[in-house]
Amino acid sequence: MAIKFDTVSFLSDYGTSDEFVGVVKSVIADLAPHVRVIDLVHEIAPFDVRAGSLALARCIPYVPQGVILAVIDPGVGSTRRGVAISVAGGTGIFVGPDNGLLPGAIRLAGGAEEAVVLSNIDYQLAAPGATFAGRDIFAPAAAHLCNGVPLRELGEPIDPGLLLPGVIPLWREEDDGLSGEVTWVDRFGNCQLNVSADDVASWGSQIRVVVVNTATSERVTRSLRVVENFSQIAGGLGLVIDSYGMLSICVDRGSAAIELQLGSGDLVTLAPDTSGRIITTKVEIGRKS
Amino acid sequence: MAIKFDTVSFLSDYGTSDEFVGVVKSVIADLAPHVRVIDLVHEIAPFDVRAGSLALARCIPYVPQGVILAVIDPGVGSTRRGVAISVAGGTGIFVGPDNGLLPGAIRLAGGAEEAVVLSNIDYQLAAPGATFAGRDIFAPAAAHLCNGVPLRELGEPIDPGLLLPGVIPLWREEDDGLSGEVTWVDRFGNCQLNVSADDVASWGSQIRVVVVNTATSERVTRSLRVVENFSQIAGGLGLVIDSYGMLSICVDRGSAAIELQLGSGDLVTLAPDTSGRIITTKVEIGRKS
Amino acid sequence: MAIKFDTVSFLSDYGTSDEFVGVVKSVIADLAPHVRVIDLVHEIAPFDVRAGSLALARCIPYVPQGVILAVIDPGVGSTRRGVAISVAGGTGIFVGPDNGLLPGAIRLAGGAEEAVVLSNIDYQLAAPGATFAGRDIFAPAAAHLCNGVPLRELGEPIDPGLLLPGVIPLWREEDDGLSGEVTWVDRFGNCQLNVSADDVASWGSQIRVVVVNTATSERVTRSLRVVENFSQIAGGLGLVIDSYGMLSICVDRGSAAIELQLGSGDLVTLAPDTSGRIITTKVEIGRKS
Repeated sequence: MAIKFDTVSFLSDYGTSDEFVGVVKSVIADLAPHVRVIDLVHEIAPFDVRAGSLALARCIPYVPQGVILAVIDPGVGSTRRGVAISVAGGTGIFVGPDNGLLPGAIRLAGGAEEAVVLSNIDYQLAAPGATFAGRDIFAPAAAHLCNGVPLRELGEPIDPGLLLPGVIPLWREEDDGLSGEVTWVDRFGNCQLNVSADDVASWGSQIRVVVVNTATSERVTRSLRVVENFSQIAGGLGLVIDSYGMLSICVDRGSAAIELQLGSGDLVTLAPDTSGRIITTKVEIGRKS
Repeated sequence: MAIKFDTVSFLSDYGTSDEFVGVVKSVIADLAPHVRVIDLVHEIAPFDVRAGSLALARCIPYVPQGVILAVIDPGVGSTRRGVAISVAGGTGIFVGPDNGLLPGAIRLAGGAEEAVVLSNIDYQLAAPGATFAGRDIFAPAAAHLCNGVPLRELGEPIDPGLLLPGVIPLWREEDDGLSGEVTWVDRFGNCQLNVSADDVASWGSQIRVVVVNTATSERVTRSLRVVENFSQIAGGLGLVIDSYGMLSICVDRGSAAIELQLGSGDLVTLAPDTSGRIITTKVEIGRKS
Repeated sequence: MAIKFDTVSFLSDYGTSDEFVGVVKSVIADLAPHVRVIDLVHEIAPFDVRAGSLALARCIPYVPQGVILAVIDPGVGSTRRGVAISVAGGTGIFVGPDNGLLPGAIRLAGGAEEAVVLSNIDYQLAAPGATFAGRDIFAPAAAHLCNGVPLRELGEPIDPGLLLPGVIPLWREEDDGLSGEVTWVDRFGNCQLNVSADDVASWGSQIRVVVVNTATSERVTRSLRVVENFSQIAGGLGLVIDSYGMLSICVDRGSAAIELQLGSGDLVTLAPDTSGRIITTKVEIGRKS
């Protein structure tokens, strides 16, 4: 059997305060010593399948050929299924739980081709308990796939159309604009929306933004300029076209999430600014900087 | 001299906010470019030799052949000794301080065979200060061992029986049950006990648990069901048989540590629930969910 | 074109809560599969070019030959330039923004030799937005350099003497001593100063230290002993000669940063203790331990 892949790209909610990630990588190194593991991210909030699904989708255009191992798995050990799903003519194989974590990324990779349930215990580690499938089921599956074990060896084929779908938050049209949400607050406090620059291309460069402060239920309205980098914000808040082409509410060298008390999932309404006045946050009267 | 190992498995309390881990890995890459370093975990609480010792023991069954580098070293630069200890016919070598960090894992690996004090400065880096033995003493030792330098080259042999023992917290019998403790609170808030499912196998699936809330000194008593995964808890708290076969106080998709204000080292008393009534936390009267 | 480097040493303020680091490593693995990436540190505070510059300088003596990729880049996408700079006869090449992050480390590596602006888009990734130069410009540059692409292929040569200089905080002489600052508070709460043990070698082993508590503006004066490791502090605070030969205000198995409410950039005045009395913090009257 010839070696098939040399890279496992690994995303989880395991965090770094415990040895979970290290143990998964140890298992892979033991079974498939030639494999390099790329840690995509492990600090997804515990159990947050939606956030993990979105992060995985953002990574997918950049991961090398090979296995994509994704484990956010609150249902571990229960009836939820572990699966492996091939994409792109078999040049990529996703391994993880069938709980909605994978479908968004799989769609971006061209859609599922073959899928199996990870039911063949010959390719799993025996364990005294069922709560660490990353170690006992998913890591061995990833390693064996890299070693050239055929997908179908890992378990019974299933119809990829019957996998639990992911939740993709789409914006919807409103009377005078559109209603979207914050999909991601990054380390810097930038708040990515599920609205792309293309979605609002006809509106011009000034956009009225209404956010609901989840802490106080207070609505905040701002007229923000669409800009191409943080420096162009030139004070206050701006709508930056981020590296994925999405609109992101940002502060230059500061945190929009703190400024507006925004978190992932918060609702945001956008509309063209038709006031005629170009109000930027910079000159807004009474604004506390 | 032939290359001997290609993997260093690395655990520390260095954290990730500073470059300590990166510098240790740079030193290893420089001296032994063929080596892969697996980060087991670096977020052990500063100076917490006990927590590091337990984490290392949990990793040991899974780490590949090679060097195990473990550095939690509050006594760095003082009279505490740096050591290297071979196990399993020389297929594994532990490198780290002689302060109780290593013995638990070494025992699980079959016991110490040969041991040396890392006293040969030919295999160390010169440094302007003595506070970073990870960089100057332990990393070079690990790299040179991977390159095939014999253990005895690194310093004088010592009797492995005279190494500082580790502290293994064992449960003890009580009148009507046993008294143990929390050995590990993981990222998800699961509280692993030093009591295995086998230890209480004769008690049936319902166990009376008394914990002492360290914040308030209040005792909390619960009757918990022993289950095999988080989903089976079905609300409230449960005793999950975790991936090491140990009992772990858990909440499904939540944190038992927060729910009970439990931390590592807190005392927990277990006894069979002989009340005849099967009280699960789910139906407990007056319980705030 | 022959492979030139096999290591990229990578420092950033990307943190680990998002997938930024994973995506950069994915891009490098895709373009230059033979390369190993060493994560130096990614938890530099957001936008903190000074802290990143100091951390990079501390790493430099230890990083292997190859590319040093450093990205703390608040001006990303603006007029600030991306650059690549060779050092040490071409055995090392720095890649990052021209914003003062690199010069301190470059000087320690022997000084800049050749420099180019990363303007050749043939060696960049196309992207729908300009805010992730680490992914789209710097990672590809690092990968192509490892693949043997000549530095000059990446863009127009520039005079390395015209790069934005870094800020190196130097101590200055005072009437009866010297005035320095805290350059680094590490995970353990050790507070490294920009004063080396050599700088005060003539003063003897007892030094009067005045720090300004930034929280309260209160001045705190202590007489501290210069020691070689944490254990020698023997209670209270000490001035440890750290692993870089610098003086560091430390507590044995505790945090000097918490004890004195010190942070990076805080001012510290040092003078020989000429009182004749050897006052250690251990016996200071009225000191709360």
